[in-house]
Amino acid sequence: MIVVMQTDATEAQILRVQKRIRELGFKDHPIRGVERSVVAVLGQVFPELVDELSVLDGVDTVIRVSRSYKLASREVNPYDTVVRVGGLEIGSGKLVVMAGQCSVDTEEYVLATAQAVREAGAHVLRGGAFKPRTSPHSFEGHGQKGLKILAKAKTKTGLPIITEVLDPRDVDAVCQTADILQIGSRNGQNFPLLKEVGRIDKPVLLKRGMWATVEEWLLAAEHILSQGNRNVILCERGIRTFETATRFTFDVNAIPLVKRESHLPVIADPSHSTGRWYLVEPVALAAVAAGADGLLVEVHQSPDHALSDGAQSLTPDNFARLMERLRGLGEALGRPLHPLAEQQAAPAKAS
Amino acid sequence: MIVVMQTDATEAQILRVQKRIRELGFKDHPIRGVERSVVAVLGQVFPELVDELSVLDGVDTVIRVSRSYKLASREVNPYDTVVRVGGLEIGSGKLVVMAGQCSVDTEEYVLATAQAVREAGAHVLRGGAFKPRTSPHSFEGHGQKGLKILAKAKTKTGLPIITEVLDPRDVDAVCQTADILQIGSRNGQNFPLLKEVGRIDKPVLLKRGMWATVEEWLLAAEHILSQGNRNVILCERGIRTFETATRFTFDVNAIPLVKRESHLPVIADPSHSTGRWYLVEPVALAAVAAGADGLLVEVHQSPDHALSDGAQSLTPDNFARLMERLRGLGEALGRPLHPLAEQQAAPAKAS
Amino acid sequence: MIVVMQTDATEAQILRVQKRIRELGFKDHPIRGVERSVVAVLGQVFPELVDELSVLDGVDTVIRVSRSYKLASREVNPYDTVVRVGGLEIGSGKLVVMAGQCSVDTEEYVLATAQAVREAGAHVLRGGAFKPRTSPHSFEGHGQKGLKILAKAKTKTGLPIITEVLDPRDVDAVCQTADILQIGSRNGQNFPLLKEVGRIDKPVLLKRGMWATVEEWLLAAEHILSQGNRNVILCERGIRTFETATRFTFDVNAIPLVKRESHLPVIADPSHSTGRWYLVEPVALAAVAAGADGLLVEVHQSPDHALSDGAQSLTPDNFARLMERLRGLGEALGRPLHPLAEQQAAPAKAS
Amino acid sequence: MIVVMQTDATEAQILRVQKRIRELGFKDHPIRGVERSVVAVLGQVFPELVDELSVLDGVDTVIRVSRSYKLASREVNPYDTVVRVGGLEIGSGKLVVMAGQCSVDTEEYVLATAQAVREAGAHVLRGGAFKPRTSPHSFEGHGQKGLKILAKAKTKTGLPIITEVLDPRDVDAVCQTADILQIGSRNGQNFPLLKEVGRIDKPVLLKRGMWATVEEWLLAAEHILSQGNRNVILCERGIRTFETATRFTFDVNAIPLVKRESHLPVIADPSHSTGRWYLVEPVALAAVAAGADGLLVEVHQSPDHALSDGAQSLTPDNFARLMERLRGLGEALGRPLHPLAEQQAAPAKAS
Repeated sequence: MIVVMQTDATEAQILRVQKRIRELGFKDHPIRGVERSVVAVLGQVFPELVDELSVLDGVDTVIRVSRSYKLASREVNPYDTVVRVGGLEIGSGKLVVMAGQCSVDTEEYVLATAQAVREAGAHVLRGGAFKPRTSPHSFEGHGQKGLKILAKAKTKTGLPIITEVLDPRDVDAVCQTADILQIGSRNGQNFPLLKEVGRIDKPVLLKRGMWATVEEWLLAAEHILSQGNRNVILCERGIRTFETATRFTFDVNAIPLVKRESHLPVIADPSHSTGRWYLVEPVALAAVAAGADGLLVEVHQSPDHALSDGAQSLTPDNFARLMERLRGLGEALGRPLHPLAEQQAAPAKAS
Repeated sequence: MIVVMQTDATEAQILRVQKRIRELGFKDHPIRGVERSVVAVLGQVFPELVDELSVLDGVDTVIRVSRSYKLASREVNPYDTVVRVGGLEIGSGKLVVMAGQCSVDTEEYVLATAQAVREAGAHVLRGGAFKPRTSPHSFEGHGQKGLKILAKAKTKTGLPIITEVLDPRDVDAVCQTADILQIGSRNGQNFPLLKEVGRIDKPVLLKRGMWATVEEWLLAAEHILSQGNRNVILCERGIRTFETATRFTFDVNAIPLVKRESHLPVIADPSHSTGRWYLVEPVALAAVAAGADGLLVEVHQSPDHALSDGAQSLTPDNFARLMERLRGLGEALGRPLHPLAEQQAAPAKAS
Repeated sequence: MIVVMQTDATEAQILRVQKRIRELGFKDHPIRGVERSVVAVLGQVFPELVDELSVLDGVDTVIRVSRSYKLASREVNPYDTVVRVGGLEIGSGKLVVMAGQCSVDTEEYVLATAQAVREAGAHVLRGGAFKPRTSPHSFEGHGQKGLKILAKAKTKTGLPIITEVLDPRDVDAVCQTADILQIGSRNGQNFPLLKEVGRIDKPVLLKRGMWATVEEWLLAAEHILSQGNRNVILCERGIRTFETATRFTFDVNAIPLVKRESHLPVIADPSHSTGRWYLVEPVALAAVAAGADGLLVEVHQSPDHALSDGAQSLTPDNFARLMERLRGLGEALGRPLHPLAEQQAAPAKAS
Repeated sequence: MIVVMQTDATEAQILRVQKRIRELGFKDHPIRGVERSVVAVLGQVFPELVDELSVLDGVDTVIRVSRSYKLASREVNPYDTVVRVGGLEIGSGKLVVMAGQCSVDTEEYVLATAQAVREAGAHVLRGGAFKPRTSPHSFEGHGQKGLKILAKAKTKTGLPIITEVLDPRDVDAVCQTADILQIGSRNGQNFPLLKEVGRIDKPVLLKRGMWATVEEWLLAAEHILSQGNRNVILCERGIRTFETATRFTFDVNAIPLVKRESHLPVIADPSHSTGRWYLVEPVALAAVAAGADGLLVEVHQSPDHALSDGAQSLTPDNFARLMERLRGLGEALGRPLHPLAEQQAAPAKAS
């Protein structure tokens, strides 16, 4: 940590800063520059120290030079984390695709969509039983009933299930059905919820908060990791910017950046990032070309009748086309699609 | 709701849109323009309808023309909501100031700060027992112990207490001590938490999510209101923008806009909005000049030793100066400071 | 400047960085931290050095600790700059109001509006002869003809004129009529234009680029100052954020921040910042409460017929009401309205 | 255009809006909804009409339903524009790569870099003679001398040249050397400059303003197109967001969106978008996977000594690796690299 003094800071003010650093248990190291002095703080500093030091007289700013996340950082753990879900290895260099409806609506639609994405080669079935909805007047998901429909789809297709949990009180119930728990963008800094999913041993897919810097996103992962659950999958889903032509701005830069900074696998959600079904395929391919370990894609048997987010859902046909293109792209990039699980590789009709 | 067709939409596509609108239980009203046709949707529409209709062939975009919030809207309730806390009336045209430490640290500091803000004329004591912290390695508040310290400060000073609740499971416990529950910016779309505080009858101060549009903020209020709790106070606390010279960008435009769109009282938090103590006073005055019903300000007896956000806390002296300036400004604007409660108006030493 | 090394940087890499710093003519000062080493660079550094050093092997990031602007900085010049326009002193602690139409349209309207703002107490007449328009299919201003109309309004009312210049080739022509040249937001980093107005001796009002950080805004001022023209007035006019309920987000934090960082006067434009006439008054008052030295406000005799930006123009009546409220606010804040010039103080009808 | 009335608008107010629409030469079409009325405006509307109508009493908002750009729109011209530069066809489905130094520094470096990018398979040489620099204290390019160095590099390598023009007064001089003129991000709404390059017949590469919505970017193109120059190439180069871990946020969504909305070719600049050389390759591949027609990449023989933007320049080796990966990716996507021109295909040493 570097304490930058004002240009007109007095000798006494600099000494006061040095003294305070030592009081707080760190070593101080002053440097006299041409324009201004700075004081380096040596030791295992913590983020709050910025506030402690920046209020002192004569201080201009305080700058951190260390990463605030540790467990999520490649500096601490240089080896890629591979998250295992049954036979699936997420983050292993093979592309994993999670697909399905945004919301669980009717059993009929969910099963049809599940069958369709399985046939097209998806590895995991997604579906929301609990939905965060901006308006209280919107459909909020079927809850427990939705989980039962997902369980049935899992039995029918053999696909593992990813579904969102919103409330720390629902974590146990969701774990009964889910193979991967999803933390949504709006809960990107819901710390009680992050802690709760940190205490279980199921994989957690952590969506980036739409307002979160890469650092804050990795710190959110740190909240989960620090409770003991090391099976964290990151998911870029678009950030909020001034551009309104798309629902969010997919931050493709973040994919290679996070792969470099962190050892955790990174998945991309091209559906929420764009909000428009016709942008899903190109942005999905882009995410993979940038280094994503896989995709989370909305597919609906009948987007006309989707209870939420129909505008960004692919039809099964469009999804099959995406998988086809992904196959070619993955080969060209040396990161092919993950092989299907045995029961999945079997003819779908027979399952 | 207006369905805008593509310029090359066919007659059949327009008819299909009209049919779908009727299937969904609404009336359709097509208009043929020079460049393109649009179809108006008549009836009590809901936001999801945008998705339902925008996936149809030939549709360019779907535009909402109604507010998505109702209970929070002045269109539904034109009269100012006044939230009562003991003898205080928030939103009544008299300025209310809530002040105190960001985090509850030691009993000694909390009591000293409480005494100081009371003497300077604050109406409510703020203090965080449960703190949302970006990093799991940061101080997260004293929890229950913190609530006890706040209760003691309340007894000592007679000031009502505002404190944050993070977890839906803590709402009852926090209600034991708090006179106003605070929902923090990071929980601006934590819907289980919003619902939970919607079921109680204590006033709730709802901070704007740092990523939330004014519409989403009012929809978050709608989540609380729709559960039955009508005592909602809005709090502008800065949004996230590209500017990094300040911690957030205080959205002063939002103050008069929300006062116009909604009947709920609006409070401003100049401390988190700026992140720098020397910007707190000018931004506080600006917020009041723009129409805010009051302020939420961080004050700490000894900012050097604050466990969080020291850099943005005022000293008691600076706070007293702010109150002084606020007094003059309020008079000039015709919105004076709210009178102090009786026990508060009594000499502080005697309390 | 501080070069932060990667945690696994080798001794050789650190030495290479030190050597490069010396090659570039600076002094190096290495510090070994617990987690990582940093190397301080001592001397009169320049921004490009960041790039030079950050490409070296083993370097994590390079952090500047000095302001990149000098002439605009209070560190270099601690005394408030006062810009003089005739008898007006902008930045002297007395509020100055510039008002008028966004675009010069008809002579009739311009003169009527000029008369009206003069009577209400405005100090400067604004009006755009050259207009930057987002669409080439929009009205782009009357150019030379518009300047003549402004000249006539100046003669009639005695008010000095502020008008925008867009093209470096028009600077001389605009100087014939204008008392203050305005650089618009879209030209906030149009360096040839900034240089050109740096070579004249007329005051320049520099609007903040809607994308510009405070630092970049002050650097744009630096471009003008470094050519010799010290009469720069800064103007906050809103930045672009995710919020679309208002046209831009007025960055009220920037007002006291810039007053602290720079010695230049700061004016606020509440019209473009909000885009809605009913937000202009509250945001204008807020800007002044935050410390602005004055206002730039759109007023139109008949907003129904304004050729541009009618939605954000005040009627003369609303403007008169704003001036009235400003008078009270200025008194309360100890920063009263600037006295009117003699010819202006005379009865308007007689002029 | 749709005029949305307030919920409590009176019959008289609605009639006044209808009358005003007719006065302005359009047809009015009122629709009475359940909550509120709207009035459709029929005819060839223009953007300013929003302002004209939104000031009328009883109006809530005015919504445009037409694109504000015409010449740039696929609705007007459905066929892909192919921009020709010698034998190169940009926008033809074959990938075109423009590479070279950010700034022209020494002749020696420019020639070495030019040779290197030619050998690696680049189609166009980039290099800045006039540089927009945030600080007046930074290197601003060699100007005319830089153009001469570029001319020499062109003779030596046979590569066409792309270089930036900043000042409308320099357009003719730059045309002497340049095969493609570049308009930089900071000039994305510099209308005199856009007009000036609209009057020439050389191709113009128009970078997106870092603050510009897709609509504003296409309107900037419209400024050029409307002057007669139809050879416009769009270039996505990152937008400004709250994320500071990268220099800008590359808006990958914009690539397929603009390809859908407009017939103009779209190029991507992964160097400025990221600001970090190690992110250039993954983001370049992502841009191409998303549908970009080509790339604009910074390469420097010796990034250690680049006069600007060294941190984001590739070494010739890294650039050769990118070209190699691009070759494979282009084949997989069915959009291969554009064949090299004859003189370029010849052995480089012999040229």
